[in-house]
Amino acid sequence: MKGFFQLISSGQFLDLFSPFLPLADIALPLAECLGRVPVNDDLRAPEDLPPFSRSTMDGFAVRARDTFGCSESEPALLDIIGEIAMGRPGNELSLRPGTCAHIWTGGELPARADGVVMVEYTHLLDERTVEIFRPVAPGENVIRAGEDFSSGNPIMPARRMLRPQDLGVLAGLGITELKVYKRPRVGIISTGDELVEPDQPLASGKIRDINSTTLAALVTEAGAVPTCYGIFPDNLEMMLAACEQALNQNDILLLSGGSSVGRRDFTLQVLERIEGSELLAHGVAIRPGKPTLLARRGNQAIFGLPGHVASAMVVFYLFVRPLLRLFMGLDADHGLREIQARCAEQIPSAIGREEYVRVRLENQPDQPLPLATPVYGKSGLLRPLVEADGLLVIGRDVEGQDRGSEAQVLCFPEQ
Amino acid sequence: MKGFFQLISSGQFLDLFSPFLPLADIALPLAECLGRVPVNDDLRAPEDLPPFSRSTMDGFAVRARDTFGCSESEPALLDIIGEIAMGRPGNELSLRPGTCAHIWTGGELPARADGVVMVEYTHLLDERTVEIFRPVAPGENVIRAGEDFSSGNPIMPARRMLRPQDLGVLAGLGITELKVYKRPRVGIISTGDELVEPDQPLASGKIRDINSTTLAALVTEAGAVPTCYGIFPDNLEMMLAACEQALNQNDILLLSGGSSVGRRDFTLQVLERIEGSELLAHGVAIRPGKPTLLARRGNQAIFGLPGHVASAMVVFYLFVRPLLRLFMGLDADHGLREIQARCAEQIPSAIGREEYVRVRLENQPDQPLPLATPVYGKSGLLRPLVEADGLLVIGRDVEGQDRGSEAQVLCFPEQ
Repeated sequence: MKGFFQLISSGQFLDLFSPFLPLADIALPLAECLGRVPVNDDLRAPEDLPPFSRSTMDGFAVRARDTFGCSESEPALLDIIGEIAMGRPGNELSLRPGTCAHIWTGGELPARADGVVMVEYTHLLDERTVEIFRPVAPGENVIRAGEDFSSGNPIMPARRMLRPQDLGVLAGLGITELKVYKRPRVGIISTGDELVEPDQPLASGKIRDINSTTLAALVTEAGAVPTCYGIFPDNLEMMLAACEQALNQNDILLLSGGSSVGRRDFTLQVLERIEGSELLAHGVAIRPGKPTLLARRGNQAIFGLPGHVASAMVVFYLFVRPLLRLFMGLDADHGLREIQARCAEQIPSAIGREEYVRVRLENQPDQPLPLATPVYGKSGLLRPLVEADGLLVIGRDVEGQDRGSEAQVLCFPEQ
Repeated sequence: MKGFFQLISSGQFLDLFSPFLPLADIALPLAECLGRVPVNDDLRAPEDLPPFSRSTMDGFAVRARDTFGCSESEPALLDIIGEIAMGRPGNELSLRPGTCAHIWTGGELPARADGVVMVEYTHLLDERTVEIFRPVAPGENVIRAGEDFSSGNPIMPARRMLRPQDLGVLAGLGITELKVYKRPRVGIISTGDELVEPDQPLASGKIRDINSTTLAALVTEAGAVPTCYGIFPDNLEMMLAACEQALNQNDILLLSGGSSVGRRDFTLQVLERIEGSELLAHGVAIRPGKPTLLARRGNQAIFGLPGHVASAMVVFYLFVRPLLRLFMGLDADHGLREIQARCAEQIPSAIGREEYVRVRLENQPDQPLPLATPVYGKSGLLRPLVEADGLLVIGRDVEGQDRGSEAQVLCFPEQ
């Protein structure tokens, strides 16, 4: 299987993930669940939130009908029968017609109260009597028991990473431990006789390993756990042993090395010889990223990434990240924010492959869409990546983007 | 200082941060630097990247002039003097006129070579002779030494959180440890006689503490380190002791409790009595979030947040997050992605205050801007926060947004 790649489309590549399953789950305290995905697709409120009818204002809890028709010139006069102190049960007091009770924001309504008059619309005549200047409707300035989340009702959409407000709701409902999907573990192996570790001195003809550091950070950014196994020479037996070891400890293995045909064929041989593995993909019709390999061993995936880090990064965002997200219980998509932008210049592309062009985004005054300016550079260069904010997508059947045209941009994640 | 607030604008509130300084720094291994901010504003390349002139293709390193004028019908004939194996010094070979050398992607060019012919445009006549079908220009299919980063040149823009590609560049340049700003520590204290811990049983009139969990997650999301000190009753001496303890261990203190006037005045008393503290703000002209307090003690900040978690969250994103970012060495802005969206319906607002309306965002087919639909709900409700994707901003001097008009939306961070 040497020589030319058998290219598939990016959509076909993603379809290859269908046999993979989410990872096992783990029970975590709520405080550790930010960004995690609950295993239970259908979390339901175990109790009402709020647990009782609460005032949303400082003022007087009333029977609404006692305020009907009152005004500045003809205030309603109500007897004050007491105060509901914060945290006290509302049923310590019960309103008869013509009576009311002091209440604070968040306090439980006394029995038979059905509305709250804001303190601004009242005037205390004496300790026991208050004038009411504005009528309230039943339910006004009140949050009913269960109005936010009613016992038995769904809490949030399924299959999403928990956000701060989601954790707040769960805390409010008394859910303080949650079963979530485990974080995927990702092993990273660099190959190449020309590579040295970043902290080592450079001999002539050698270059520091950039890919391990970059890929490990991309894994962390995606919410998974990277382990770097270091640099291996172009030796099949040593590589196979390293892969076997890494596969014993990880859910995904990323092999990254040079971009040469020779290196690619070497990686292919490695993938084909890993015990129990099946080669799923051998090239994808995108640029950069064409020489991407994918193999599967049970529920584990092994990616052969292009050697140029700029290409490897595109492949990571387009394919590795979706599989990580699938493993974490999410849909198998890249999860990057997609926006529309206006092309600052003409961007040529070739029919028959998708292009992912690194672009800088700038908001324009009085323009709804940001301007996307390509950051060109040879594929081996890193500087364009450091300057770019995202990837502009040019479809497979499009010859390019005109200057001023709208295009889709996948934004790099915010840090 | 009871009763009405003395409102300042959100811009004036942010101006109050000018006396605050970034935190101290800490040296970390590169692998731990994702999302951190380098202390050195002016990181420069200590060496060239790449360290030598490299081929970007598999093929033959040549003297470009030896290929000038060649074609399919009149190929240039070159003598092969050897191969530059991966990781070997290029100067093991030196090209005389009419000679070339095998080279691989990433390999160092031999002495006197200035271009690379792709293997696709060559034909091997025998082991020592190759036909070249296409001329190359000097520098073609080559990345020059220092072409990506030249020794002494700036590496990346100052004052930003490091991204995976930034770490890759630093690794490539041999920088494996970096001084970065420390993560701010944030103490969180909830107040209210009505509150119980989320894992405790609910007595009548009690409600679980939602704010501690939500605020801690917001702190984590911003890249800082939260510590929750639990729930304190409305007792001035106990609160003061708790605040003093928390201030000994944190850079920022968040006090959150009920939204009542009484609770607000209580928090104000606490802030005024903390030894060495100075009250900087006492209300801000935004909705929600008006009853926000800010005090300063040296380089520490104490926020009195509105009691409703929906309001506290807005205040966190608008004000706490910018100060956290300042402490981390960034500009004192919210750091949320700002996009333009189209209003799905009319959204009224009041002159004299900024409004932050929770909205759901939906991409529309063939429309450049997403549709922003307000998720209304009483300010004490959490469900609108769970359903919302961001905050639509309505300016201070605007009466609202018309249906179909464009508006700015601050997107909640991606998880």
